[in-house]
Amino acid sequence: MDKIFVIKIGGNVIDDEEKLSVFLQHFAAVDGAKILVHGGGKLATNLAEQLQIPQKMIEGRRVTDEDSLRIVTMVYAGYINKNIVARLQGLGCNATGLSGADGNLIQAHKRVSGDYGFVGDIDLVNKQWIESLLAADKAIVIAPITHDKKGQLLNTNADTIAQKVASAMAGTYKVHLIYSFEKEGVLLDADDDASVISNLDKKNYDNLKKSGTIYAGMIPKLDNAFDALDSGISKVVIGRAEKLDELISGKGGTTISNE
Amino acid sequence: MDKIFVIKIGGNVIDDEEKLSVFLQHFAAVDGAKILVHGGGKLATNLAEQLQIPQKMIEGRRVTDEDSLRIVTMVYAGYINKNIVARLQGLGCNATGLSGADGNLIQAHKRVSGDYGFVGDIDLVNKQWIESLLAADKAIVIAPITHDKKGQLLNTNADTIAQKVASAMAGTYKVHLIYSFEKEGVLLDADDDASVISNLDKKNYDNLKKSGTIYAGMIPKLDNAFDALDSGISKVVIGRAEKLDELISGKGGTTISNE
Repeated sequence: MDKIFVIKIGGNVIDDEEKLSVFLQHFAAVDGAKILVHGGGKLATNLAEQLQIPQKMIEGRRVTDEDSLRIVTMVYAGYINKNIVARLQGLGCNATGLSGADGNLIQAHKRVSGDYGFVGDIDLVNKQWIESLLAADKAIVIAPITHDKKGQLLNTNADTIAQKVASAMAGTYKVHLIYSFEKEGVLLDADDDASVISNLDKKNYDNLKKSGTIYAGMIPKLDNAFDALDSGISKVVIGRAEKLDELISGKGGTTISNE
Repeated sequence: MDKIFVIKIGGNVIDDEEKLSVFLQHFAAVDGAKILVHGGGKLATNLAEQLQIPQKMIEGRRVTDEDSLRIVTMVYAGYINKNIVARLQGLGCNATGLSGADGNLIQAHKRVSGDYGFVGDIDLVNKQWIESLLAADKAIVIAPITHDKKGQLLNTNADTIAQKVASAMAGTYKVHLIYSFEKEGVLLDADDDASVISNLDKKNYDNLKKSGTIYAGMIPKLDNAFDALDSGISKVVIGRAEKLDELISGKGGTTISNE
């Protein structure tokens, strides 16, 4: 069974020119089938501020109204996606950037619960379309924008897209899902990069959640990771984007397992 | 030989919700292979104004500096491209939106003459990539952003992209190139839509240019059209975007010929 890497890159890395540059060099060097899913970073927030578009929040979560959707479509599917693609092309990697609307790559529906506006929950990943691109030796770069196949674009969490795309490829491929971000991995002490947990299983995770060692932003990320393992993905690794080579070779980051 | 339609849609049509909607319905209904190349419209200019980015001009031509490139990448490759794709998907047309960087679709180099900034002159259209998308029954929607394959995105005229893409497909396909915009076609009297010239050959064109009947914005468009015919394209039609069905069937607009 062929191997495929589905790699999520976090927003904080995209905001940092030097880190992004190192990451892209590593990504271009990855051998074989690969998919990059990128988040947004501060660019969208900054643009919204510059345009004086107020960010609506409900219970701490951002609401994607029409103006915000316009911003994220421009920034994620336009500026970030096309710059990453052009830079990968410059590094000799034949990348193609897509949103979920392109070739009906990712079909979603507008979230029903809560009033989050134009936020999409994923219904379908177009595995056939991904396979035909990979067969033509193309690396795929996915922006976190989906659509409902009725003409409406939707804002969708990039971590979730990475997990759903990885799950869709499982069975046909041996899938390695990598969440790369600004930390070494899952840390026992959030302020100490040396405290990275090399291997995290479900039981340890539950204990660390109970004790409050793992909290806040890491929880949805790790929940996604364990969901991914449940859906047949071979390996999930979380770690530092600039060390993507080590995350790929298994020498760095936190490896998540169900055992 | 299979037929292909390469259709350029002008910026003024994109700015007009009602016209765009009618155009997209006609485009979705076109039978067989089709490529849509879109321009930008006022959205990019408006966004630049809102962000207080001054538009630099040299001899009446816009200069694409770094800030302007960021704007057009966001607006053309992001907002406009993805909205058109999502709406076509909603109309049952399996569209995929691409910039010139995606899969190295259109390779260009930064213009040498004049100081126009990040403006790209086209070197290469990736015919093989286009053919593989068309073979998978995908309609292609191209944003007027290219790249130099060294990591740099470039702003490129949409009329020229349409012409170069159409030329690249000639020989393998019977190519119909359609420039659709806000007028009935080439007019003898710019203020009278009824004065449309049904057929325009090179000799008539030269005469009408000399007499000043055809001037300003129409000249580069028509020069592109005649260049296209020289490169083996079967037919070039210029006319109203909302009447795309008539331009396709040959009942409306101005048909350009070399005879």
